[in-house]
Amino acid sequence: MKIIHTDRHLGHSGHVELMNGRVVPAFEKPERVAMILKAIGERNLGPLIEPTAHGLDPVLKVHDANYIRFLSTAWQLWTEDGRDFPALPSFWRAPGMRYIEPETVDGKFAHFSFDAGCCIVAGTWDAVQAAADTALTGVDLVAGGEKTAFALCRPPGHHAHQATMGGYCFVNNAAVAAQSFRDRGAARVAVLDVDYHHGNGTQAIFYERPDVLVCNIHGDPRQEFPYFLGYADETGAGAGEGFNANFPLRWGTDFGGWSAALEAACARVEAYAPDVVVVSLGVDTYKEDPISQFKLDSPDYLKIGARIAKLAKPTLFVMEGGYAVEAIGINVANTLEGFLQG
Amino acid sequence: MKIIHTDRHLGHSGHVELMNGRVVPAFEKPERVAMILKAIGERNLGPLIEPTAHGLDPVLKVHDANYIRFLSTAWQLWTEDGRDFPALPSFWRAPGMRYIEPETVDGKFAHFSFDAGCCIVAGTWDAVQAAADTALTGVDLVAGGEKTAFALCRPPGHHAHQATMGGYCFVNNAAVAAQSFRDRGAARVAVLDVDYHHGNGTQAIFYERPDVLVCNIHGDPRQEFPYFLGYADETGAGAGEGFNANFPLRWGTDFGGWSAALEAACARVEAYAPDVVVVSLGVDTYKEDPISQFKLDSPDYLKIGARIAKLAKPTLFVMEGGYAVEAIGINVANTLEGFLQG
Ligand SMILES: [Zn+2]
Ligand SMILES: [Zn+2]
Repeated sequence: MKIIHTDRHLGHSGHVELMNGRVVPAFEKPERVAMILKAIGERNLGPLIEPTAHGLDPVLKVHDANYIRFLSTAWQLWTEDGRDFPALPSFWRAPGMRYIEPETVDGKFAHFSFDAGCCIVAGTWDAVQAAADTALTGVDLVAGGEKTAFALCRPPGHHAHQATMGGYCFVNNAAVAAQSFRDRGAARVAVLDVDYHHGNGTQAIFYERPDVLVCNIHGDPRQEFPYFLGYADETGAGAGEGFNANFPLRWGTDFGGWSAALEAACARVEAYAPDVVVVSLGVDTYKEDPISQFKLDSPDYLKIGARIAKLAKPTLFVMEGGYAVEAIGINVANTLEGFLQG
Repeated sequence: MKIIHTDRHLGHSGHVELMNGRVVPAFEKPERVAMILKAIGERNLGPLIEPTAHGLDPVLKVHDANYIRFLSTAWQLWTEDGRDFPALPSFWRAPGMRYIEPETVDGKFAHFSFDAGCCIVAGTWDAVQAAADTALTGVDLVAGGEKTAFALCRPPGHHAHQATMGGYCFVNNAAVAAQSFRDRGAARVAVLDVDYHHGNGTQAIFYERPDVLVCNIHGDPRQEFPYFLGYADETGAGAGEGFNANFPLRWGTDFGGWSAALEAACARVEAYAPDVVVVSLGVDTYKEDPISQFKLDSPDYLKIGARIAKLAKPTLFVMEGGYAVEAIGINVANTLEGFLQG
């Protein structure tokens, strides 16, 4: 399978996050990609190819123009008052506050974010654009007839809403890809999000649409970030009613419980009969993940890949989370290998 | 005038905030009260008296029970996993996310906050209760016939909503006081908020009520925290329509512009003909304030006090913000002296 990758993700480096009341180096770091590349190379899973430029039009199909304008200028805004260190939001909204974009930089960061884990540095916007191009190049391959491809996106995307960054995510690469498949003629697209965290952004973007089914398996929002989305009763709205499926699982869930949810999610995908499947591939379900609470082990990812292969649909894998750096390569490679052998 | 004060505010010490992408000691610190006490003593403005205990019932008249339960247990929740340093929220809500209280501590901090400036330490809850008692003891004095009193509350309160902390505020002392005046027989209460920042919490608490007029003079939310409330077109809702008045002013406003807004706000208060006035007294309008952008000078506060005196109503001053520690005492004492002489 072709693996789309560019070193431009390295521009998103040296960023921080507020964690446990302290500003610390972000768990989402460039070494994650290095370890994935290493494992993919050792297994000979496929050739690396560079993404091609797609411009912002496909991004603007799922994100608000004001938000993209903010992302593209955020570092300049942050630094023009003399700040030369990583940018973090500090303020947000109380329930009942208004939705009006402020004029000032700290206000704009507040307006367009929902946590203090979406840090912007000098190279962030270039890396974000490169990640979207990585996903879109994967769409080119799969829409062009390849059975599968792996878009090695970084930063990840599934927490990003139409106009809100958070959870290390800025542009929702999987949503951009799903929309692009639609624009290239797919009548129905399924997004299967197996990251430990709920893909709140992907859900929100397609919540009122029947043409993109979104299935999420994730930590119960009663316990886990993003806390305020990802409940089982969120089934879509309006024309999208019935086209969103959440499978929240409690802290400590092992592969027995997790794979039952995967089976249920895959049954939903099969019933939907999509033309193509986009997999939001996070491996922070791993037992040693430093910020997560599931108990999956490395061999389990072979089975996950094999189950996804059984869907027997053209499949684009889009990289999301996974923060146990030592094991992230093995777990991603296992998923892809399980898929190829499945 | 009697000044209500207790050393219990000292329990809220050593706290931090996320500012400019860094965790720093909070600008809202105990030294603020020490400087106010010093200036009050030098001017012989009145005797200090200790607050009396009023319990939580008057607090629960303006705050949700779940929120108060959270505040009262937050430090225990934060530390029971081994964290022995100040607690800060890291996560909030994207627009469209749900309002459901999570089970876990980081989720609860996210649920009940709107910024990373409401830090909780071991003594915070005791200090917060003491501040509410300070305001309520002021109500006792003024409802009992005193012309005026000064509740030297710390931490401040005017940013706290019914169920949301933020902007250094936990319990809305001014709102608790206004409600208590109502419960003691005042038919109409006016809150005049002269702090540099919009008193978003006070506005939100009384927004649909005609029995409490809320007037705010503050930094324009297009430029200034809290960003998403404080616009001039927020005039109240339902039965409260017409009983909220905002006077947002641009960065760099001097006393000429500010005092015109004060005149307009006082005209609103006079037209309302309240039985009592609660003044949310912040002096972060001062030209040297480290986090604010107005240009008031120390002698201006004498005039502010005098203009408030001209309302000729029983008046309770409740301390809010002001972060230029060297000048905070002078500016507060000037306001009170201007009132007493006015
Ligand atoms: Zn994740
Ligand atoms: Zn203030």
